[in-house]
Amino acid sequence: MVEQKIKTRQVPSMRACLLQISCLMKSRNEALQHVARFFGEFFGTAILVYVGCLGCAHSSSISNSAFQNSFAFGLAVLIAIQSFGCVSGAHINPTVTLASLVYEQITWFMAIYYVVAQILGGLIGYGLLVASLPKEMMTNELTPRGACVTFVSDKLPFWQGFIIEFLITAVLICVCCGIWDQRNAELKDSIPIRFGLTIACIALAGSQYTGASMNPARSLAPAVWNNYWEHHWIYWVAPLVSSLITSVAYKYSFRSKPESEGKVNTSQP
Amino acid sequence: MVEQKIKTRQVPSMRACLLQISCLMKSRNEALQHVARFFGEFFGTAILVYVGCLGCAHSSSISNSAFQNSFAFGLAVLIAIQSFGCVSGAHINPTVTLASLVYEQITWFMAIYYVVAQILGGLIGYGLLVASLPKEMMTNELTPRGACVTFVSDKLPFWQGFIIEFLITAVLICVCCGIWDQRNAELKDSIPIRFGLTIACIALAGSQYTGASMNPARSLAPAVWNNYWEHHWIYWVAPLVSSLITSVAYKYSFRSKPESEGKVNTSQP
Amino acid sequence: MVEQKIKTRQVPSMRACLLQISCLMKSRNEALQHVARFFGEFFGTAILVYVGCLGCAHSSSISNSAFQNSFAFGLAVLIAIQSFGCVSGAHINPTVTLASLVYEQITWFMAIYYVVAQILGGLIGYGLLVASLPKEMMTNELTPRGACVTFVSDKLPFWQGFIIEFLITAVLICVCCGIWDQRNAELKDSIPIRFGLTIACIALAGSQYTGASMNPARSLAPAVWNNYWEHHWIYWVAPLVSSLITSVAYKYSFRSKPESEGKVNTSQP
Amino acid sequence: MVEQKIKTRQVPSMRACLLQISCLMKSRNEALQHVARFFGEFFGTAILVYVGCLGCAHSSSISNSAFQNSFAFGLAVLIAIQSFGCVSGAHINPTVTLASLVYEQITWFMAIYYVVAQILGGLIGYGLLVASLPKEMMTNELTPRGACVTFVSDKLPFWQGFIIEFLITAVLICVCCGIWDQRNAELKDSIPIRFGLTIACIALAGSQYTGASMNPARSLAPAVWNNYWEHHWIYWVAPLVSSLITSVAYKYSFRSKPESEGKVNTSQP
Repeated sequence: MVEQKIKTRQVPSMRACLLQISCLMKSRNEALQHVARFFGEFFGTAILVYVGCLGCAHSSSISNSAFQNSFAFGLAVLIAIQSFGCVSGAHINPTVTLASLVYEQITWFMAIYYVVAQILGGLIGYGLLVASLPKEMMTNELTPRGACVTFVSDKLPFWQGFIIEFLITAVLICVCCGIWDQRNAELKDSIPIRFGLTIACIALAGSQYTGASMNPARSLAPAVWNNYWEHHWIYWVAPLVSSLITSVAYKYSFRSKPESEGKVNTSQP
Repeated sequence: MVEQKIKTRQVPSMRACLLQISCLMKSRNEALQHVARFFGEFFGTAILVYVGCLGCAHSSSISNSAFQNSFAFGLAVLIAIQSFGCVSGAHINPTVTLASLVYEQITWFMAIYYVVAQILGGLIGYGLLVASLPKEMMTNELTPRGACVTFVSDKLPFWQGFIIEFLITAVLICVCCGIWDQRNAELKDSIPIRFGLTIACIALAGSQYTGASMNPARSLAPAVWNNYWEHHWIYWVAPLVSSLITSVAYKYSFRSKPESEGKVNTSQP
Repeated sequence: MVEQKIKTRQVPSMRACLLQISCLMKSRNEALQHVARFFGEFFGTAILVYVGCLGCAHSSSISNSAFQNSFAFGLAVLIAIQSFGCVSGAHINPTVTLASLVYEQITWFMAIYYVVAQILGGLIGYGLLVASLPKEMMTNELTPRGACVTFVSDKLPFWQGFIIEFLITAVLICVCCGIWDQRNAELKDSIPIRFGLTIACIALAGSQYTGASMNPARSLAPAVWNNYWEHHWIYWVAPLVSSLITSVAYKYSFRSKPESEGKVNTSQP
Repeated sequence: MVEQKIKTRQVPSMRACLLQISCLMKSRNEALQHVARFFGEFFGTAILVYVGCLGCAHSSSISNSAFQNSFAFGLAVLIAIQSFGCVSGAHINPTVTLASLVYEQITWFMAIYYVVAQILGGLIGYGLLVASLPKEMMTNELTPRGACVTFVSDKLPFWQGFIIEFLITAVLICVCCGIWDQRNAELKDSIPIRFGLTIACIALAGSQYTGASMNPARSLAPAVWNNYWEHHWIYWVAPLVSSLITSVAYKYSFRSKPESEGKVNTSQP
């Protein structure tokens, strides 16, 4: 009885206190979640760059065909999505984050946060590659620009490299929009495989012309480490502009509307 | 009160008006859906032709084996289905549209609509390829007919090319009928992968004999752009006839009947 | 009223009649189902042999590596399962039918029925291959025994070929038993892919030693058409004995028991 | 009535007896389950080593590229998981068992049990390989150390081999933690494929440097049979330390908390 009384008397202040604690913990939890997401993108992009580029490095003693490289990069995306998709969504690509922003899935603040994580993750991923391989495997007569650097093939004028990066990024963003579409909301099981094979396919198609980057964070890392900047702007402008245009176009042409929209209520007042 | 009264008085006309609007919007929504479907097929086929053919183009400096080409084309189908399957079903192939018509999934009107979209999409997709690659990569001593043109290998008489296109299209349509079967209705998650690997397999088997087209819209685009028409009729007649025969045969032999059919009601009157 | 009366009077005989019709139709439906299953196995095996062997045929002008062949055969299994899995289960292999019999999923009668369909389907599938390719592509200096004939490599003594066929069939049957296990009953979506990649993997491992047949129906067809019988018994004895032993062993060691079994009811009488 | 009476009288002793039997059977069932799990790991690892190494063995007459080997090993993991995942979870790798221990999914006792099964399974799997292939295919000028032995490429200093094994094992464990995460609990259908392609990708990336083992049980077997021990410690220390660090880090940074945790109950007393 006494305990009960005390409790009852304490309730107003206690409740306020609990609410405050709950509020603090909630914001602390949210902050922790933000940090987790940051590191999800960070490690996801690091895995993409480390595993993908390790599979691309070649020298006179290590043979890697374009076919092999394409699967190495594509399936590295599978790995990154499987590992950190549940943490941060595993965009691991600023163009995907931009499309996600257009789709209003994340805030401006989070988008910047994600892109910073992706860029840092890519740089660290390539740094781990530098630590893993001897110097002559990173830069040699077969890869004079440095392992895994994306560049426009000298068989193409640079503007065709721009067109290719633009179009293949548009294809990638179409796949993202398809996966994000409400009509596919239940079909989540094989997403890492579908994404991985998508990247493998686009890399098969485009890697011999431009490296099939579609990803500024992935292109920046080897450019910084090898200090190779020729036509580097293409790997930022083409994918980002393409992502913006494609995601806006898909959103307003194809995206399934929420069910309530477009109905006229004819029920009697 | 006054508002309420006015409302009540306006109801008859308002309701009629609302119904009319709703009706108009419904038909407008349906029309928009039709347009969306058209562009779904259009962009889907454009992606198929652009990505698939980019992965097939080869020259003295760009090496692409038949193995690689098969996966490029197969996984391009994965991409098209993942991107626009939720919009239009992503037939991206007149033979699939024909089988779908046999299965009464679409109307005659929609089928024609789809095929037009597929043909235009293929033409635009190949046009983007022409814009993406220098001329000597499109036509050279290795691909004298033009990149990605389907032709019957000169090791075969043309009628064996016809047989191969006929049989591999039958295989493709069997896969479609299997996927459309009611007994598989719940198994939708990995459809893009299953379809993509199906095409990759058939291309592995047949691409060195006939190009493994199975798709008039895909074959027409490079034929038009390169003005190459030898045995082109095979890529229309063989797939379409095969699709018609296979889908009718599967429908009447193997398709699961709706549950009510075939039951005799013995309940007492 | 009159009608009603007549009906009521007719009921006894009508009901008997209806029951008889229903019974007849039921047995007719069952018979039709049996025929459908027969043709499911028939066409499934025909697809396996036609597509798989078309992907294996090579000559001086058509290059097909062991890597490529493995994927052609593996993914042909994907196609057969996707096409006819819903019709007959798509065993397309007598060893799988034998394991299915051990698992009491089909009757002795049906098992024989299935094996006959598989053998005939394989023969027809290879016949279509003969119709599709010129003679010099079927038998040439690179494939002197005939395209797609399974034989023990002359680098191995025949008994090691026996061991390899025995062990790889055991692996295949383990995969079947895993897929059939009750604990995996809900995981059906990607079965065709999982099976296809399983066969691709085993073919990658064993095709250069014994052809990695694991399937008497698949091995019989090219043997008959090319009249090549050296060590042919291995492709019957090794897979079938292996399937029997493996399926019995898996059934009694690993198979999940139905839930009721093994419980002692301690509820009070 | 008489029967009923007898039953009622017997109940006390009978119930005790039944409970005892049930208890005995339960512990017997549990013991049987433990034995089944042991053999699940045993056969799973045997399949991994047998199929993977059969796909890797090469000689002057059998060609196997690094690309091919990677898929053979990756898809052998698919096979092992599909076959015995429902029995024991199909760790088939001591580093996965260690991560599972960190995640408190198995007890210390079971973990040791699993690792013993994996080591024995690997030894038997390689033994079957020795029985399957002639001696000159196991050890020849192309594989002087013995087929499928993992060693650090002589192009690398051994400590870079250590870094690569460390990092690629970390990637593998990230994939495990992602698959084990509660947020992915429903996505089980394509796990064997996702795991198989993960291993294929990592093998594509790393197999030419260190063999991309990530698995002491897989590395031990060929080392024992060929008596080759140079840098063998790397294949124990790097994967196990990496697994411990990665799984602890993922668990405390990214793992989704059970839903009740972190909530403050503000409901009125």
